[in-house]
Amino acid sequence: MTSVAGVDLGGTNITIGLVDDDFRVVDDAKVPTPRGPGRAVDAIVAAVRALGADVAAVGVGAPGPVSDGVVLTAPNLPGWGDSVPLAQRLRDSLGLPVEVENDATAGTVGEWRAGAGRGSDHLLGVWLGTGVGGGLVLDGRPYRGASGAAGELGHVPVRLDGAQCGCGLRGCVEAYAGRASMERTVRLAAEAGRPTAMLDIAAAAGKQRLTAKVWSRALDDDDPLAVAVFAEAVAAAGAGIAAAVNLLDLDTVVLGGGLTERFGKRLTGRVLAATRAHLLVADKPLRVAVAELGDDSGMVGAAALALDALG
Amino acid sequence: MTSVAGVDLGGTNITIGLVDDDFRVVDDAKVPTPRGPGRAVDAIVAAVRALGADVAAVGVGAPGPVSDGVVLTAPNLPGWGDSVPLAQRLRDSLGLPVEVENDATAGTVGEWRAGAGRGSDHLLGVWLGTGVGGGLVLDGRPYRGASGAAGELGHVPVRLDGAQCGCGLRGCVEAYAGRASMERTVRLAAEAGRPTAMLDIAAAAGKQRLTAKVWSRALDDDDPLAVAVFAEAVAAAGAGIAAAVNLLDLDTVVLGGGLTERFGKRLTGRVLAATRAHLLVADKPLRVAVAELGDDSGMVGAAALALDALG
Repeated sequence: MTSVAGVDLGGTNITIGLVDDDFRVVDDAKVPTPRGPGRAVDAIVAAVRALGADVAAVGVGAPGPVSDGVVLTAPNLPGWGDSVPLAQRLRDSLGLPVEVENDATAGTVGEWRAGAGRGSDHLLGVWLGTGVGGGLVLDGRPYRGASGAAGELGHVPVRLDGAQCGCGLRGCVEAYAGRASMERTVRLAAEAGRPTAMLDIAAAAGKQRLTAKVWSRALDDDDPLAVAVFAEAVAAAGAGIAAAVNLLDLDTVVLGGGLTERFGKRLTGRVLAATRAHLLVADKPLRVAVAELGDDSGMVGAAALALDALG
Repeated sequence: MTSVAGVDLGGTNITIGLVDDDFRVVDDAKVPTPRGPGRAVDAIVAAVRALGADVAAVGVGAPGPVSDGVVLTAPNLPGWGDSVPLAQRLRDSLGLPVEVENDATAGTVGEWRAGAGRGSDHLLGVWLGTGVGGGLVLDGRPYRGASGAAGELGHVPVRLDGAQCGCGLRGCVEAYAGRASMERTVRLAAEAGRPTAMLDIAAAAGKQRLTAKVWSRALDDDDPLAVAVFAEAVAAAGAGIAAAVNLLDLDTVVLGGGLTERFGKRLTGRVLAATRAHLLVADKPLRVAVAELGDDSGMVGAAALALDALG
């Protein structure tokens, strides 16, 4: 039995797990992400050592484009500026084989090897959270693109001249289906006088943000603004997924992230219908499934890539 | 020097070329496409034999999804119904190795190996004709998808609730950027009284259709409807290409087909600008080039695949 460390390097926390070669997480830990790449490397090294002596390799999922172990940009990591050769720095410190992968791709690999994507060779992972992330497995291999930046489903344009996205572009999937954009839309509409109880629901729950729980409550109450904004989100996500399916002839889509965990199969059914509305082959066999590994997808996927590299 | 036959099996004509291992077309011929797969096989066999005795293998580009040498559907081929094991039937008749590929993928492979896409490992081929076709080379390999149907750039949705496409869906790239759709839009607008000289230009040129030449003339004259419809086509094509680039992190796009041949670099510059308007990485190195092989892309690409299979 070989065990490796899987690391999910996030903007807020570093999550690390000891993962065996059946992709089971046998131990895990979480530490706050320190500022800057030097201290992040130190934190990962300390966490790997704390897992014990039987770690054969390390896999890391990082929030940004990754090419040959180098994190090219990572706007969500505090204090990271230029590109960081993260794999090499961890190898030097740990004396172990290290693989570094984009986090959305790592999450997709986790679901492909050990979750809802098992058995597919043509898979899209969609991560519905504050933004909308995506990862691809094509022809049975993780797909990274020319410079490690593939998978940006959130920035597939679905409405020419549409709503402005956080990225500055117009009409992106994320401008409709990212939680941050959905919240902005609700607040602007509420200010403009459209009736909604969403802000009251959030306040009553002691939430500063319109969390997945707040959305769930508002939709259960048939709140008209929540229903309308959620329908737009589903339509945009469906169109973006259909763009990917028509281009790439995929057979499986795995939905993960906070909104998916809350809504589960209610969401996959609606997203599948919105996708089918734009599929060239309307009766194409296409499975849309909820991620099975929850928050562990990225950690397990990074571990799987490290295991694969051991051969 | 090994020579192979490259075949472009079209709805109107079968074009065949003798292609050497430097991808030069040393001989070629064209015959009308007969009705039904049996007679099409006979016509290809006769054309291959007419090329002479030194044909080492045959590659065919066919208009439809192709999986393991089987043409699954081919609505543009007269009298083709169910799936046809075209590679096997040609092998049985010719006693030669045969590769069959989707025609848009074959054209993209042709440009990748011997044309404007040389040197790229992450390439989209876009074929602007009556419809809008697409082909992909990813990680330095032709990409076919789960069932041989990948590359449908024409049916990437770019306007939710947009114009109806010939395929029945709404808001597809092809609904704006396919010549047939553009013509339909012009005729409807002209009937509704919008000023345009396009139909007169076509009549004066003795054309039943709004050909690339008619478009060129109308745009040179600043015909207001032509300018508006063409701008919509460029915007939609750009958004569809951006969807592919953001998803797949491509570095090269090759534009081919009748409209491209007529407009050349004037078109690639405008399409690149329309694509950049939706690129997540605005300054990403991305090349948009005109196909170099003209009508031969598919034939040369099919031949290249046959050469590769010889090893």
